[in-house]
Amino acid sequence: MDNLQNRKLRYGIVGGGAGAFIGVVHRHALALAGQFELVCGCFSRDEENNASTGGSLGLDDARVYADFTQMAQTEALREDKPDFMVCTTRNDYHYACCKAFLEAGFHVMCEKPLSQTQAQAEELQRIAHVKGLLLGVSYVYSGHVMAMEARSLIRAGEIGEIMMVMGEYPQDWLIEMAEGANHGISTWRIDPQIAGRSNCVGDIGTHIEHSISFMTGLRIEKLCAVMDKFGAGTALDNNAAILIKYSNGATGSYWCSQVAAGYDNALKLRIFGTAGAIEFDQEKSNYLTVVRKGGAPQLWSRGRGYIGDAAAAYSRIPAGHPEGYHNAFVNLYSSFADALRDLVSGRLRPLEQYDFPTVEAGVDGVRFVEKCLESAANGNIWVKY
Amino acid sequence: MDNLQNRKLRYGIVGGGAGAFIGVVHRHALALAGQFELVCGCFSRDEENNASTGGSLGLDDARVYADFTQMAQTEALREDKPDFMVCTTRNDYHYACCKAFLEAGFHVMCEKPLSQTQAQAEELQRIAHVKGLLLGVSYVYSGHVMAMEARSLIRAGEIGEIMMVMGEYPQDWLIEMAEGANHGISTWRIDPQIAGRSNCVGDIGTHIEHSISFMTGLRIEKLCAVMDKFGAGTALDNNAAILIKYSNGATGSYWCSQVAAGYDNALKLRIFGTAGAIEFDQEKSNYLTVVRKGGAPQLWSRGRGYIGDAAAAYSRIPAGHPEGYHNAFVNLYSSFADALRDLVSGRLRPLEQYDFPTVEAGVDGVRFVEKCLESAANGNIWVKY
Amino acid sequence: MDNLQNRKLRYGIVGGGAGAFIGVVHRHALALAGQFELVCGCFSRDEENNASTGGSLGLDDARVYADFTQMAQTEALREDKPDFMVCTTRNDYHYACCKAFLEAGFHVMCEKPLSQTQAQAEELQRIAHVKGLLLGVSYVYSGHVMAMEARSLIRAGEIGEIMMVMGEYPQDWLIEMAEGANHGISTWRIDPQIAGRSNCVGDIGTHIEHSISFMTGLRIEKLCAVMDKFGAGTALDNNAAILIKYSNGATGSYWCSQVAAGYDNALKLRIFGTAGAIEFDQEKSNYLTVVRKGGAPQLWSRGRGYIGDAAAAYSRIPAGHPEGYHNAFVNLYSSFADALRDLVSGRLRPLEQYDFPTVEAGVDGVRFVEKCLESAANGNIWVKY
Amino acid sequence: MDNLQNRKLRYGIVGGGAGAFIGVVHRHALALAGQFELVCGCFSRDEENNASTGGSLGLDDARVYADFTQMAQTEALREDKPDFMVCTTRNDYHYACCKAFLEAGFHVMCEKPLSQTQAQAEELQRIAHVKGLLLGVSYVYSGHVMAMEARSLIRAGEIGEIMMVMGEYPQDWLIEMAEGANHGISTWRIDPQIAGRSNCVGDIGTHIEHSISFMTGLRIEKLCAVMDKFGAGTALDNNAAILIKYSNGATGSYWCSQVAAGYDNALKLRIFGTAGAIEFDQEKSNYLTVVRKGGAPQLWSRGRGYIGDAAAAYSRIPAGHPEGYHNAFVNLYSSFADALRDLVSGRLRPLEQYDFPTVEAGVDGVRFVEKCLESAANGNIWVKY
Repeated sequence: MDNLQNRKLRYGIVGGGAGAFIGVVHRHALALAGQFELVCGCFSRDEENNASTGGSLGLDDARVYADFTQMAQTEALREDKPDFMVCTTRNDYHYACCKAFLEAGFHVMCEKPLSQTQAQAEELQRIAHVKGLLLGVSYVYSGHVMAMEARSLIRAGEIGEIMMVMGEYPQDWLIEMAEGANHGISTWRIDPQIAGRSNCVGDIGTHIEHSISFMTGLRIEKLCAVMDKFGAGTALDNNAAILIKYSNGATGSYWCSQVAAGYDNALKLRIFGTAGAIEFDQEKSNYLTVVRKGGAPQLWSRGRGYIGDAAAAYSRIPAGHPEGYHNAFVNLYSSFADALRDLVSGRLRPLEQYDFPTVEAGVDGVRFVEKCLESAANGNIWVKY
Repeated sequence: MDNLQNRKLRYGIVGGGAGAFIGVVHRHALALAGQFELVCGCFSRDEENNASTGGSLGLDDARVYADFTQMAQTEALREDKPDFMVCTTRNDYHYACCKAFLEAGFHVMCEKPLSQTQAQAEELQRIAHVKGLLLGVSYVYSGHVMAMEARSLIRAGEIGEIMMVMGEYPQDWLIEMAEGANHGISTWRIDPQIAGRSNCVGDIGTHIEHSISFMTGLRIEKLCAVMDKFGAGTALDNNAAILIKYSNGATGSYWCSQVAAGYDNALKLRIFGTAGAIEFDQEKSNYLTVVRKGGAPQLWSRGRGYIGDAAAAYSRIPAGHPEGYHNAFVNLYSSFADALRDLVSGRLRPLEQYDFPTVEAGVDGVRFVEKCLESAANGNIWVKY
Repeated sequence: MDNLQNRKLRYGIVGGGAGAFIGVVHRHALALAGQFELVCGCFSRDEENNASTGGSLGLDDARVYADFTQMAQTEALREDKPDFMVCTTRNDYHYACCKAFLEAGFHVMCEKPLSQTQAQAEELQRIAHVKGLLLGVSYVYSGHVMAMEARSLIRAGEIGEIMMVMGEYPQDWLIEMAEGANHGISTWRIDPQIAGRSNCVGDIGTHIEHSISFMTGLRIEKLCAVMDKFGAGTALDNNAAILIKYSNGATGSYWCSQVAAGYDNALKLRIFGTAGAIEFDQEKSNYLTVVRKGGAPQLWSRGRGYIGDAAAAYSRIPAGHPEGYHNAFVNLYSSFADALRDLVSGRLRPLEQYDFPTVEAGVDGVRFVEKCLESAANGNIWVKY
Repeated sequence: MDNLQNRKLRYGIVGGGAGAFIGVVHRHALALAGQFELVCGCFSRDEENNASTGGSLGLDDARVYADFTQMAQTEALREDKPDFMVCTTRNDYHYACCKAFLEAGFHVMCEKPLSQTQAQAEELQRIAHVKGLLLGVSYVYSGHVMAMEARSLIRAGEIGEIMMVMGEYPQDWLIEMAEGANHGISTWRIDPQIAGRSNCVGDIGTHIEHSISFMTGLRIEKLCAVMDKFGAGTALDNNAAILIKYSNGATGSYWCSQVAAGYDNALKLRIFGTAGAIEFDQEKSNYLTVVRKGGAPQLWSRGRGYIGDAAAAYSRIPAGHPEGYHNAFVNLYSSFADALRDLVSGRLRPLEQYDFPTVEAGVDGVRFVEKCLESAANGNIWVKY
């Protein structure tokens, strides 16, 4: 029997044609990982782009599809069908795409957000559970070695009981919006039809929520959100500040922005406990600041001997040789592959023991956006989670 | 007539005996400034400490007082009386001390907070206005050259219209409280009888409020505050997160903490506008990060040729020779002295054209604490300012 | 005719078996690049490691070779032979391996150093020139986008005439050596038979030399080197400090170390001109500090609009999404592939117009090590270059 | 008997008139220290400046002198004569000024360099020894609390045996010189008649030498110096790179520059031992980076509980409240005052147990400059120390 142990895993992908961002990143990272093989794809709704991308990747024309539903159904019939599918479409297709793959019996890795509504996310969750399929959601920042190390340290009680969490994620790529007229910005992220009901919180605020949840295990009890739409005629939020109360009594403060001059992509998490603190900055993802109460801040470096085994297992190159954005995807997919192989060979452990974000994280992410919207729409009230 | 132009200004001080912190800092800074002369004092409620401090400072015994009211009244009768008085007592004496000095006809510089209630602050404001006396409040961080430069740049429109403000002020000196029992911490700051109704917001949150107000001129329209009392038996807040809506539509998020492991005294302000951004960190107070939309972040340095005249006037030593905490006090007192000399010589300009925090800032500071308390006490609701 | 334009380039590799470092990095990077296909290999002198590595990579057993000479000769006869070969062996095989490939008519990319002696390097240079073959040397750090941007800015005269260069490259992975006994360190880098006559200068000092040469075009006129062997019984240098005079009158100071506690892999270059300065730190390789005389230091970020076209062409993901060590290799191989395709289609430009280090850089690198050894062996005298 | 225990110490000063830099800093720092009283001065060779400075400082006209020799002789006759004198003139007067004061029986604190030649320095040393007078030299950077902490840690063996030292001190205030014509720069520092035979090494290189010596106790065995005079018509060095061999076998590399674009005053020292490393940066003088072999770099902060008693004794304000340039002078003078009081009361300990730089440091500093000049003048040869 093929238990996937001694061969590369086959995958198909939706998205990633010429001009795309995140789909290309997934494909490159899957190549970097060294254990995956692309066998089919649906790269673009533009026919020519789709065909030429498939060709340049060496795919058989027959396995380059105009439509993901067709891809799901056709590929499901092949003996050498993909071991899993990857969905990297625009937000508005995530739900339909995942649904098509799950119903055709495929495991799936989907870009975040899992869907545009919580109801959709929960439906996907049900399907995956019923069919016993893996459904991962690529919250990439939890794939960094030092994000995993942060989680390990926190779980081991190194910083004590958590009291406060400061999470921020500023960017400035939409700052032209803030000056009033649209300045000709063309991106589906600011179009409610495609992006969904939120732009900033949905795109990046949700990464704060996931990273914090991943590292700390804290559960949100209630939140109070201010969602700003800076610039005349702006339809969706481009800045948000959110207060959180967690169920353990800790307080959180999140800030995300797409109009913060000078910031590239600065997801930064600071977690404070009774015995110490941890700080993670994804733009310096090879490092972690670790403080023990009474001691001096320490700058931990990926690849060093003091890093715990669980995180170190993902480190591929020595300290000082930076692993970057692609490497974080490699780590998520490596963990996804571990789970897949374990599943096929009947040795699947509880999913929380793996290191990729599961459908539960995907549902949480969609709920977070909905709760922020609910708070903001009702005068920034506190909303139960 | 003595118009104060060609001599040192004489001052008396309350506080600053052996073992004191902030009173000693004021006295040292006044010496560093080079234009002030200590002539009388009431240094400690401990008789011996009071006497020995006065002696070591070379004061005539007759001008070392056991009581600030007595000092006010006695000194007011002298021909060579102080030109102004300095109040650096514990919070619970600020109001009474300032009142005594104002009523005796003295100009005053008072440590923040100006008082424990807004009503008291407004009373002091009225007295000062009626009597035509200067009443400064030493929000020291606005005394840094680069804080002044930030203000100048913002006023000149360099960052456009302000959209968001992120202010934070973490410390960890009370982290032992967070672990439960008091661990024998002995400080009046955690005693409601002395500190007033707030510890953390009153002591350091108020610095965020003042610095932002000083730099931006933004007015708070409403706020929503979470004030935490981490640790069993903790009577006053030691951590707070606050959302702000300013009258111009901008959003603010403030965080202050005394239980944030690894932080010394990290007041950091980030102000984002439609055309750029500015970041000031008091622990690196000789620098300012300046971003123009589309450009790379620049690290401006105090003492360099590109610093504007208004701020540069306070720079005493060349770039790269750090000015620190004492120097910020020097700057506040220098501006206070300028105003005092102008007042005496009949050339006083509107007070907002000087660079020291006035009684209006003091009233604002007390109001800010009260509004945070009101929000927190009522379920963290939004409170009109 | 097959002009390589519309297909992946085929390559064979020597090195990179289980347990190897740099060979695996090359292979991973070539996968990440997306335009290369591994077709044959000689992964390890250990037969089992060699076979299992080849198998896990999906290679035909017939194309997994025990010997690189055999691989060169056998593959040269195939119609679907590799378009180029990659040499990632230990230092002592670089010369023989490159020679075998060149003589069999293959283009080659070789790890640095190109050889153990200058005479060998020059021989390889001659063979490559005579046969019209590309011979690249993977000085990886010049592959970073921001290293290329530094070069562009300097070439464009942005910092004026260069006066001083400070280059450093500290690590600490051999610090146990410094305490005396060997502490059981087992690495061929400290074995003269394998590493050659230098450890530290040969392994990392040479990266300083290459990066500076790449960015500035400066030519060394003379140098004075101190090469330390800290720890009892240490056979090769593990620390070196080198003074340089360049032919334009500029002064350089280089430092490399493998016993500098706290440093991972901190190649840092600072280049000072009459009109400004540039600083590059490979551990923060997505940034560049740029100073114009009289202005504030600016932190430039890869992927931003102000980055010049030449460097930006290599940027694959947006600013703030870190590109790391693998990405720098991707860039070198991409440029190598450009040259290869241009060569095959008869449009090869002068090699200095491409962005990968050529055999000339390889020869320079070996000469640099020899000159340092000559200086150190003769009492740290100044040696003509 | 007046043993100086219960009163402020009286001092006279040479230098510090209007427009002066370092003399004013000394005077301000002496005021900040709180235990010194200015009683006489010779502030400027400009009569009016001298008189008006004295007047503004409240000095009796009779104690404002046109000439330091006259001041020495006249003041020596007073009963209330100064306890010590401070020399802050231009370099060319240091020797004569110190000599006049010593011969009149005064203890002296002198700005560095102690003199323009080693012979002069040694003569001053002899006079001070014979007369039993204290002669301090204000190498200010060793006055920082964290510089003292570095010394304590190194003395205690925390970083093991020292192997390498990297010292640098770049500035850019003379960068206009580097472009060729003088650009009208007017400063005595570039005039050999006043500055002496070196500008850059004499002004700032000597601070590297002193700080390293202070922290480590290492003795220089030989050195090799390149001293650059960038810009047409430049008479004295404005950049230098120096290799050092210490008597314990350690290697040093120093770099100082006045033409390094973007740098203010960046004295930075890195000291590497077999067991760890320490880094001090005077522009961030409230911190120290401490590394223990195998551990993560730690950022130590002045004022924290883990700081040793010897250094902590100089800390006046809590961690996070920056002490700056003035505070370092305060510390030097405090230690000088301790020694003076101990001397007067017959309890003087060996001078190396105090924390101010003594005449021995002054002699070393002048020798360092001479040795660099000797190396540079002879083709950058190695020179015995």
